[in-house]
Amino acid sequence: MGPVTVRSVGLDIGGTKTLGLAVGEDGRIVAQVRRPTDPGPSGVVSTAAAVVAELRAVTGEPLAVPVGVGIPGLVDAEQGLVRHAVNLGLTGESLPLRDLLAAALNTSVAVENDANAATLGAVAETGHDDLVYLSIGTGLAAGLAFQGRLRRGAHGAAGEVGHIPVDPEGVVCSCGQTGCIETVASGSALAAAWPVAPTAAQPHAAQALFSAAAGGDPKAIAVRDRFAGGVAAAVRVLCLAVDPGLVVLGGGVAHLGEPLRAAVASALVAQAAQAPFLAALDLPGRLRIVPSEVPVAALGAALIGRDVAEGRWR
Amino acid sequence: MGPVTVRSVGLDIGGTKTLGLAVGEDGRIVAQVRRPTDPGPSGVVSTAAAVVAELRAVTGEPLAVPVGVGIPGLVDAEQGLVRHAVNLGLTGESLPLRDLLAAALNTSVAVENDANAATLGAVAETGHDDLVYLSIGTGLAAGLAFQGRLRRGAHGAAGEVGHIPVDPEGVVCSCGQTGCIETVASGSALAAAWPVAPTAAQPHAAQALFSAAAGGDPKAIAVRDRFAGGVAAAVRVLCLAVDPGLVVLGGGVAHLGEPLRAAVASALVAQAAQAPFLAALDLPGRLRIVPSEVPVAALGAALIGRDVAEGRWR
Repeated sequence: MGPVTVRSVGLDIGGTKTLGLAVGEDGRIVAQVRRPTDPGPSGVVSTAAAVVAELRAVTGEPLAVPVGVGIPGLVDAEQGLVRHAVNLGLTGESLPLRDLLAAALNTSVAVENDANAATLGAVAETGHDDLVYLSIGTGLAAGLAFQGRLRRGAHGAAGEVGHIPVDPEGVVCSCGQTGCIETVASGSALAAAWPVAPTAAQPHAAQALFSAAAGGDPKAIAVRDRFAGGVAAAVRVLCLAVDPGLVVLGGGVAHLGEPLRAAVASALVAQAAQAPFLAALDLPGRLRIVPSEVPVAALGAALIGRDVAEGRWR
Repeated sequence: MGPVTVRSVGLDIGGTKTLGLAVGEDGRIVAQVRRPTDPGPSGVVSTAAAVVAELRAVTGEPLAVPVGVGIPGLVDAEQGLVRHAVNLGLTGESLPLRDLLAAALNTSVAVENDANAATLGAVAETGHDDLVYLSIGTGLAAGLAFQGRLRRGAHGAAGEVGHIPVDPEGVVCSCGQTGCIETVASGSALAAAWPVAPTAAQPHAAQALFSAAAGGDPKAIAVRDRFAGGVAAAVRVLCLAVDPGLVVLGGGVAHLGEPLRAAVASALVAQAAQAPFLAALDLPGRLRIVPSEVPVAALGAALIGRDVAEGRWR
């Protein structure tokens, strides 16, 4: 892979696959590998170890560097614990993932929630240190970075904007409330509103919907615009609550790319049509979308691994 | 006033009166005076100077100490500029209030938006450095303090939660949007929903409403509970967006005291009745109310004046 020095390794451990990056100076990605994730505590640890071994083989380097991990679920970053990562089969006791991986890899390890890791990856990708990362996946949640530091919140709940109700006449959310933003603006809401095939994954539903809308199908246009309006409502909540410099769209649905950004920007323009004060805040101008080839969560995890090893808490 | 050393002076410049505090070590209030505010640029400056002169007379000290100012409107804290303070007659060009006052008082001056000043006052009053201050006055807006520092936002718009729409069937807001939280949860909304007398000030409407509700008037109970539900909606937005350690209720309507806190806490309990995840976040338990005798904005202004003079940016 040439003479680039690897500074850290980043792992994005997801329900279906684990992505590993070897990251060099200035956040440059030196090597990238992926493997299916084996579920359960020992499966997660052995998958992570196998990914790092593969990175060693690909780079021809020993990779005695810090490792950062992004993983879904409730993460206690200070203690390196993970729980409630249901898609990974981590449903019981807190898993001491940091210490288990540090022992398996013989290096320093830092663990963070995957949305938070992606938020710092978006900071690196955009070069802006004050932003909100809005992850549109199965659900809807945000990560907050203010002056380059994560805002996790007093109970780790900062960014849970998907469960803010905005319509008393809306549908009942899985959380028990009515009219949550997530009931309109999420991959699962989109798949329910535009069913493609009984077994289609959500990204396929999003692609099919946006293709049909681009082709002029009036029903598809209505469904797309309602979805985009929901995402725009989340952007508005975030901009009025914390006024970030940028709002970066990410998560599985963001693989749609520019058509998604454009649809949400249009919805934001429409929202501000009657409200000069809102128009003056220029929400559409703050909108960015993660290029689908940039692995922001693994990249952010690598940066966290490096920073924590060097004593800089993010 | 005894031997307590005055560390700084705080001024809360409002549309009707200007409150001045001489604040000692540990944030203790040594002396307090108030005067009617003369409107317009020169009126605001001369009122502030007169209040400081009166504090000098009351304390018998020269008060050669830093001065902090809390004032409504758009404040550029770094440059010490104020504009759009309509109630003070400051509607034209930006007023260089910091430099004008520094020249008039011959001391260092720092200027901050009054809600931000009150937020730091609430930090001092509660002893918690991670909180949201929710000001319920004519309108509804919040100040955010994370780890003791103000979150002003990229455009100074952080905390503008009053203009988050939460009901597509709601009434049109003065901002032009529909169903903003402020259309339900503000002093002006409350005065419209419970008109007391053609000339009654809003605090009187709030007092009359809560008295009638406490007396069992079913219509008053319904109006009070709808108002409290609106405040609770703002608390929920803030807790899900930034997850503060405390939410402190302040502003003119908060002079209601404990009955307001209790009504909002009840509304929060009702909101979470069907949502275990929300109940687990214990929003009612984070709710506090500023005691009506504590001048949080002037107190926070005094702390800002001291800190800025000592090179600590808040």
